[in-house]
Amino acid sequence: MILYKTNGDWFGDIRHLFTSYTMQKIVRSVIGIGIYAAVFVWLVEFFRLEDFLVMDTMMFSLLGVILSLFLGFRTNTAYDRWWEARKQWGALVNNCRNLAIYVDSMWPESDTGIRRFMAKHIANFCIGLAWHLRAGVDLDKLVYLSPEEEAYYKTKDHVPNFIALRIFQRIAAAHRDGTISEGDYLNIKAQHQSLLDILGACERIKKTPIPFSYNVYLKLFISAYGLLLPCGLQESFGWTTVPLTMLVFFALLGIELMGEEIEDPFGLDCNDLPTGDIAHTIKRNVFEILEDRTPADRENKELYTKVF
Amino acid sequence: MILYKTNGDWFGDIRHLFTSYTMQKIVRSVIGIGIYAAVFVWLVEFFRLEDFLVMDTMMFSLLGVILSLFLGFRTNTAYDRWWEARKQWGALVNNCRNLAIYVDSMWPESDTGIRRFMAKHIANFCIGLAWHLRAGVDLDKLVYLSPEEEAYYKTKDHVPNFIALRIFQRIAAAHRDGTISEGDYLNIKAQHQSLLDILGACERIKKTPIPFSYNVYLKLFISAYGLLLPCGLQESFGWTTVPLTMLVFFALLGIELMGEEIEDPFGLDCNDLPTGDIAHTIKRNVFEILEDRTPADRENKELYTKVF
Amino acid sequence: MILYKTNGDWFGDIRHLFTSYTMQKIVRSVIGIGIYAAVFVWLVEFFRLEDFLVMDTMMFSLLGVILSLFLGFRTNTAYDRWWEARKQWGALVNNCRNLAIYVDSMWPESDTGIRRFMAKHIANFCIGLAWHLRAGVDLDKLVYLSPEEEAYYKTKDHVPNFIALRIFQRIAAAHRDGTISEGDYLNIKAQHQSLLDILGACERIKKTPIPFSYNVYLKLFISAYGLLLPCGLQESFGWTTVPLTMLVFFALLGIELMGEEIEDPFGLDCNDLPTGDIAHTIKRNVFEILEDRTPADRENKELYTKVF
Amino acid sequence: MILYKTNGDWFGDIRHLFTSYTMQKIVRSVIGIGIYAAVFVWLVEFFRLEDFLVMDTMMFSLLGVILSLFLGFRTNTAYDRWWEARKQWGALVNNCRNLAIYVDSMWPESDTGIRRFMAKHIANFCIGLAWHLRAGVDLDKLVYLSPEEEAYYKTKDHVPNFIALRIFQRIAAAHRDGTISEGDYLNIKAQHQSLLDILGACERIKKTPIPFSYNVYLKLFISAYGLLLPCGLQESFGWTTVPLTMLVFFALLGIELMGEEIEDPFGLDCNDLPTGDIAHTIKRNVFEILEDRTPADRENKELYTKVF
Amino acid sequence: MILYKTNGDWFGDIRHLFTSYTMQKIVRSVIGIGIYAAVFVWLVEFFRLEDFLVMDTMMFSLLGVILSLFLGFRTNTAYDRWWEARKQWGALVNNCRNLAIYVDSMWPESDTGIRRFMAKHIANFCIGLAWHLRAGVDLDKLVYLSPEEEAYYKTKDHVPNFIALRIFQRIAAAHRDGTISEGDYLNIKAQHQSLLDILGACERIKKTPIPFSYNVYLKLFISAYGLLLPCGLQESFGWTTVPLTMLVFFALLGIELMGEEIEDPFGLDCNDLPTGDIAHTIKRNVFEILEDRTPADRENKELYTKVF
Repeated sequence: MILYKTNGDWFGDIRHLFTSYTMQKIVRSVIGIGIYAAVFVWLVEFFRLEDFLVMDTMMFSLLGVILSLFLGFRTNTAYDRWWEARKQWGALVNNCRNLAIYVDSMWPESDTGIRRFMAKHIANFCIGLAWHLRAGVDLDKLVYLSPEEEAYYKTKDHVPNFIALRIFQRIAAAHRDGTISEGDYLNIKAQHQSLLDILGACERIKKTPIPFSYNVYLKLFISAYGLLLPCGLQESFGWTTVPLTMLVFFALLGIELMGEEIEDPFGLDCNDLPTGDIAHTIKRNVFEILEDRTPADRENKELYTKVF
Repeated sequence: MILYKTNGDWFGDIRHLFTSYTMQKIVRSVIGIGIYAAVFVWLVEFFRLEDFLVMDTMMFSLLGVILSLFLGFRTNTAYDRWWEARKQWGALVNNCRNLAIYVDSMWPESDTGIRRFMAKHIANFCIGLAWHLRAGVDLDKLVYLSPEEEAYYKTKDHVPNFIALRIFQRIAAAHRDGTISEGDYLNIKAQHQSLLDILGACERIKKTPIPFSYNVYLKLFISAYGLLLPCGLQESFGWTTVPLTMLVFFALLGIELMGEEIEDPFGLDCNDLPTGDIAHTIKRNVFEILEDRTPADRENKELYTKVF
Repeated sequence: MILYKTNGDWFGDIRHLFTSYTMQKIVRSVIGIGIYAAVFVWLVEFFRLEDFLVMDTMMFSLLGVILSLFLGFRTNTAYDRWWEARKQWGALVNNCRNLAIYVDSMWPESDTGIRRFMAKHIANFCIGLAWHLRAGVDLDKLVYLSPEEEAYYKTKDHVPNFIALRIFQRIAAAHRDGTISEGDYLNIKAQHQSLLDILGACERIKKTPIPFSYNVYLKLFISAYGLLLPCGLQESFGWTTVPLTMLVFFALLGIELMGEEIEDPFGLDCNDLPTGDIAHTIKRNVFEILEDRTPADRENKELYTKVF
Repeated sequence: MILYKTNGDWFGDIRHLFTSYTMQKIVRSVIGIGIYAAVFVWLVEFFRLEDFLVMDTMMFSLLGVILSLFLGFRTNTAYDRWWEARKQWGALVNNCRNLAIYVDSMWPESDTGIRRFMAKHIANFCIGLAWHLRAGVDLDKLVYLSPEEEAYYKTKDHVPNFIALRIFQRIAAAHRDGTISEGDYLNIKAQHQSLLDILGACERIKKTPIPFSYNVYLKLFISAYGLLLPCGLQESFGWTTVPLTMLVFFALLGIELMGEEIEDPFGLDCNDLPTGDIAHTIKRNVFEILEDRTPADRENKELYTKVF
Repeated sequence: MILYKTNGDWFGDIRHLFTSYTMQKIVRSVIGIGIYAAVFVWLVEFFRLEDFLVMDTMMFSLLGVILSLFLGFRTNTAYDRWWEARKQWGALVNNCRNLAIYVDSMWPESDTGIRRFMAKHIANFCIGLAWHLRAGVDLDKLVYLSPEEEAYYKTKDHVPNFIALRIFQRIAAAHRDGTISEGDYLNIKAQHQSLLDILGACERIKKTPIPFSYNVYLKLFISAYGLLLPCGLQESFGWTTVPLTMLVFFALLGIELMGEEIEDPFGLDCNDLPTGDIAHTIKRNVFEILEDRTPADRENKELYTKVF
């Protein structure tokens, strides 16, 4: 995610625009439609086809209203996923911090083993979740893994699930041998359970994009609209048709592609949530609370493969 | 549900379009309205009826705005059902997984009977729910049924309800003979209860489509709009009326029919939720947790009867 | 509520239209405005008033946009009430079923008295609620009333409240004489309380329609719009003004009247929720769980006084 | 609040219109703009300024779309506050009723003191809250105040807060001397706490109108739009400009002023919630439950100072 | 935040307008675009470029619709953050008050130490949170700090977090030495935890503005629209192009900039929430409840650096 100051310099923000991945995709498409429009106008003028083309801007205006409402629907649903994902990660921060405080106040202060175990596993759960929601968990990203753990996780597909399982087994063992009371066990179980609920919600957001038909229908509609636009404009505007077509197509395409980009907010695109950075913040917080130290920062801010 | 990658190839997605059931329905209707428009234009030109037809595109523009707002309402409410259904099934995944973990940690490790019982019944509840929300439960879909169970379920209309009842009877029995404590009983009851709440919510979504009047009104409006459109366009556009009418009708009809399709998200249409696949994922998870094994996969991915 | 299959036959649904109460009201109004428009056009043509009328369709287009947004607001708020009411009744189903299961598992199996008492009172609460939200409770609708109960309820205005009170008194008595434990008492109290919460929410929906000003303003706006429309159209369209005015008025009026109809979803209109049928389903479920029998069905599906 | 029957007589509702406070304000403003438009048209015609005025209705159409969206935002946010306030008061009804039932079942039946105390204080809390959200609490409105209480409340600014405090002190005292058990204490505390949460939510709604900039911006926009409208219309419409300007201004102003009116729903305007009547309903219910009697009704339905 | 009376004097509110920071920014931009439009028109007229410019207002109308929908999305999401922030601070008020009441009723009345400690720390948490969400916490703003505390907080980045930690340590100590029971401990822990949840939610709102692409895209679109507008208008309107361009640009820019302003609602802009004042209200309430006195008010109402 590109961090920026709202209410800052207007044209400063616009400068970033031309280094963007999605924007490059948009620009390529807009140039393509421009070439198409130019060829179209040239053909009409060369072969004098004006009489066979009876089109009207009114029709495009009506279709534009329908399309706008559809794009509004697209934008709202995509944004809702993005914002729900942000809320889930915000809840993850609060939850991990509270879990650490709970562990710290429930176990006797002399028991450094449980503190180290919890700090490591909570941190690894968050880092693992961030990567699980992208391409998959690379075990090198996790911290303080013992060789035994590395071998164990290597056999598993769904690493965060098994990190959560190990946390729970430790808590259940502490409950069985009487270290923590019944009430504490139930309380800590509720907090552990919400880790899995957040994991489930993030997977739901990732795996369920907008219904396929809507996706295809919108693309078909935008394509058809862009291809027909020169027919409608050519008569009144002549060569001005080319920039006009490009402008309208840019407006429509941009909304669609930005919707697609933020719909899956867990990647490394410039609008995606900084899940990696949030995971590292949680790591730092949890280690501070449970071990009174800051772990060595092996990574700086994440680099984004697709800038902007 | 067709699984697809957002932000992928633009025209690739459009290719799928022409194999779709709903799309075929749309195409048939659009061709029909095209024939109607052609006949209409021919009649007007042949009998020279132009003077009796005084229409204006402005009127269609205004009606188009009203219609668009209505279609937006239609789309939003249909999508809300679809998304709420997805959330309920996401909650079912989390809930079943937590129930399995709870059972695994509460009963002594030597008791394999309860583990096998729970794994089987939770899995069957989910598979049964998926089919109950379609045409009805076919007992062949359920796993590891004993002949006694098969006979028992055969006499019942609402299979998932009775699977849930059997789960609860087992828990209540364990509570009565003191295997699980009072606190555990209340906790596990809450989780069992949410199984029934999810079932109830899915039935509510399935049984309550958009109010009947809205459904009829929208269809009437779209039909009237499509039939009147040639009157308005014929004067200025001549034969271009035909493709224009088809284009506008396609835009309107598509939104309506896609709304109808996703409104009941439990079927086998291409936009419906992959409830069958989710149920099988739960089955695998629950067996892994409770029996440390993966059940033989008797089914691959579901086939969709109405492709797209 | 008319039950219908989404995604079914298009024209089949439209056929129902002309038997509808609200639709008849709409048709009468539309015919009225048609007569008005015809008289208006005749007057203008007869007395040659064209020069005094300078109107423009643009103005109607702008006012149409404002009106559309307002109608969208109207539709959304009305639908939200309808859907919230449906959710409350769905929660009532789940809640009653769970209450019955709870009672069945908490009291000793030999105690048939409490089972019969609970089955009767929960069923009567739901039936009573359905009728309370309409014209008022007719005691003949309730099932298995003893003469004593009938006399008792006859003196009360708010029957469901007093059914709930009797249920609670029975539970409190069972708690006092030690039949159920403290924990059970609190649990069952929570479920009993949600019966009253659902009752309160339904009353809120019924008693609080859209603010009065909005209701009046919208009616005034639609009336004014319809009355002015012939002035704007008459110049360009001549006698075609009459059907155009009727068409636009039909579109506007229909949305307003359907919003009014679904705003109070507890009646017997064709779009109202089938609260009576839901109440009878609950009755059947509760008797099945608590008495292992199905009560004699004294009523078939409800008839709707105002058939859509 | 004016109580009215949805789906009733169409023109009957419109009749009420001209007695409304807000409507009078609107009518005055609309007449003002009409005079302005008339003067404007007269000046243009008298001094033959037509050539200096080049305006177009298209511009007003575009600005009208932006304005409509803004008015939609305004209406939605105002309505949301109104509806949230209604929900809070609905929750207050349920909560007070449940609190009364709880008190009635927890204290021994012989203790009439606590019943009288609770009935009086809960009723006074609700009446006090209704008036606190208006101009302030007039102690004469409260019921059964002893002289000691009256003197005590007179020294306080925030009367409902101190009524709630007295309720809590009584409960805490009952807990200390062992009248109610630990579990009851916690349960009743939760219900008492939600009284204060409802109070806080109502204060939030009352004290936080729409952000100031939006309020001013919308007023500025409507004013500018109204003042410029005659320039745009004068050329094509001549003297018809006057009624057209008034009609459009009426549409815009009405939405804005109705939004302002329902934004603070606790007053005595005709669209405000009948908080006084709800409070008296709660009083009656609570006295019925706790003292088996109906308190003398000292007030009839509230009169509204600003009718409609 | 500027406090104002809804439903008050219309033109009175407009007067404030010209002292506003954001409004000055808007006015500067609008004047800039006016100069640009004037130069443009002059160039066209001087060099007689009319024939090279073929533009149409229809195109701007269509783009205007798309832009409006986008601005509506912008406004809604910004407002949602503002309103969620307001709800969080409303919850903070309720929560702190309840925490104070809980402490007051749980600890013996003779223990003034805990009361003073809690009053001070709760007040400081709220004041610290208000400033933490702005530029950072200035320790001079906190009340009754001992030198030891001041030195301690000086070493910390995130002051509210450590205030919360100190509160929790005191509660945990009281639990360990048996002053408060197990049940009280869990209850008070839940309330303490919601302090941190509110803190986390406010940080989420502050740190996550609208996705960067939307921000840039909207700015680019408005800029392009404003720059092209004179081309479209110049032909039909001549010099009237200048005020028309300024008017439209004012409408679009105002919505965008107001959205930016309320998106971060914790600052000192005129639309921001009065978090400082709310914090001081909490301080007064908490001291009243726990120490029966009002702390000396060291600050009056906050001054706003950017008025309006």
